Amino acid sequence: MRLLSFELNGAATVGVRVGEEVVDLSIAAPQLPRDIRSLLAAGPEALAVAEAAAASANATARRPLEGLRHLTPIPRPDKIIGLGKNYMKHVEEMGADVPTFPGMFLRTPDSLVAHNQALWRPEASDTLDYEGELMVVIGRGGRMISREEALSHVAGYACHNDGSVRAYNYIPAAVTAGKNFLRTGGFGPEIVTADELPPGCKGLRLSTSVNGELRQSADIAEMRWDVAHLIHLMSTIFTLYPGDLIATGTPSGCAAGSPDPQWLTPGDVVRVEIEGVGALVNPIEDAPRVRTDLEVRL
Amino acid sequence: MRLLSFELNGAATVGVRVGEEVVDLSIAAPQLPRDIRSLLAAGPEALAVAEAAAASANATARRPLEGLRHLTPIPRPDKIIGLGKNYMKHVEEMGADVPTFPGMFLRTPDSLVAHNQALWRPEASDTLDYEGELMVVIGRGGRMISREEALSHVAGYACHNDGSVRAYNYIPAAVTAGKNFLRTGGFGPEIVTADELPPGCKGLRLSTSVNGELRQSADIAEMRWDVAHLIHLMSTIFTLYPGDLIATGTPSGCAAGSPDPQWLTPGDVVRVEIEGVGALVNPIEDAPRVRTDLEVRL
Repeated sequence: MRLLSFELNGAATVGVRVGEEVVDLSIAAPQLPRDIRSLLAAGPEALAVAEAAAASANATARRPLEGLRHLTPIPRPDKIIGLGKNYMKHVEEMGADVPTFPGMFLRTPDSLVAHNQALWRPEASDTLDYEGELMVVIGRGGRMISREEALSHVAGYACHNDGSVRAYNYIPAAVTAGKNFLRTGGFGPEIVTADELPPGCKGLRLSTSVNGELRQSADIAEMRWDVAHLIHLMSTIFTLYPGDLIATGTPSGCAAGSPDPQWLTPGDVVRVEIEGVGALVNPIEDAPRVRTDLEVRL
Repeated sequence: MRLLSFELNGAATVGVRVGEEVVDLSIAAPQLPRDIRSLLAAGPEALAVAEAAAASANATARRPLEGLRHLTPIPRPDKIIGLGKNYMKHVEEMGADVPTFPGMFLRTPDSLVAHNQALWRPEASDTLDYEGELMVVIGRGGRMISREEALSHVAGYACHNDGSVRAYNYIPAAVTAGKNFLRTGGFGPEIVTADELPPGCKGLRLSTSVNGELRQSADIAEMRWDVAHLIHLMSTIFTLYPGDLIATGTPSGCAAGSPDPQWLTPGDVVRVEIEGVGALVNPIEDAPRVRTDLEVRL
């Protein structure tokens, strides 16, 4: 099942994509929760109801996918855990030491935009960079989860652009700064439930392009810590809740890995695609200036 | 005004401390929002209503402070920004380079407990350390806030123990890990509105003791980046919302700064006190083992 969130008449609505159409669950299954986080918290039975409703929905519940106003699939997760240093070729291109534990930070929800929405190049720096990633969506919460049990806690997977403001990423002990500028990352377009994909998405190809030019290409199986291992590690630190997001790190090919980085500029279009999961597309715009009297510099 | 959150008959309630009593705002001013975050979002007029109600409350709205079951003053803030490297003597004791920007991370709300609640030493490491800090509570949100305007965005101040699991803090690019173990930090007991304190709390003494023994003592004015500067810097990255929390870094005297660190162990009691702001007290306990078959090691 392919779950997505979209805006209809000013309200957030949950949909199930069926081919080139979306079934509006607020009509097809009005008894279900109205956001994906609550739907996941309601358990597998609720997801089964959604799936059955999507399969049998009549025309009044169907909308064309084209022109849909996407929201991030989970607009307000309890937390968004970002992980890094998980593809060794990226570690090499960044000149980092071989890691013994993933790099780690948290992102705020409003640092992320939905499919087709613009990413903002911030006032503070022009070093905006893309990072194509696999996003893991937690279905069943918990803590102290073993590697063997970890994948049973996954609801599904999505595409993620862990957009980064590099000048701030490089500040010692402050990687969080470069990962949290307003609307600098992307998440979507939809969550594909785990039953439709290989375990931990191994064998699937992740690719990122800018203006149609391929920049990143890797197999998810290249991860140093695979999805099960990451969930285990994070569950020894955090309590995981339904709808929590775990971003699994980016492969090589970022602008920052180049000796002559070509940062993202307004008009660029970034596409993060994962086989079987989808394609997340975001154009770049300058953040609208809220004031001109304030000089911002690192 | 001294605002606090407490639990009464299983529900979270907002109170105003008046001497050794607490005025229950759900009785004294039932028209007000039932949590401090919403109260702050409602603006200065709502706070004025709370203050007037507290001053004129009769006995049915008053509770003794003693025995009150505190909650963290803002149980679910939009975000908790942690800052570090802000007292130079602490930077020195940690062997860190002179910073050009504060260290930075985010904490999840459930990493924090209220006044009098136990801090948990986690399964994963026995390197639990205290960090006494001033917590800034945002009243009026915004972004791109100048240093000159910054203090007008502050609702008030509170005590904070930025409890840290050091073995994880030291992982490169993963300071976030050591700051997010379940129930390892403290926040409270109450928020003192900014009008009752000197600007940015400069001149107030922050002190931390363990089992009655003084470990940290500094003037808030020793901060490298003062409260106004920190708000300015964070507002160039994040959008700040009412109820957001900014932890302003810890002075020297942490266990980690010692050549022979005495980590916190069950039975210890940590007290973080700031002149005029209050005293936050937390005993240490081992996290309850949710399972015994899972070996957790860094």
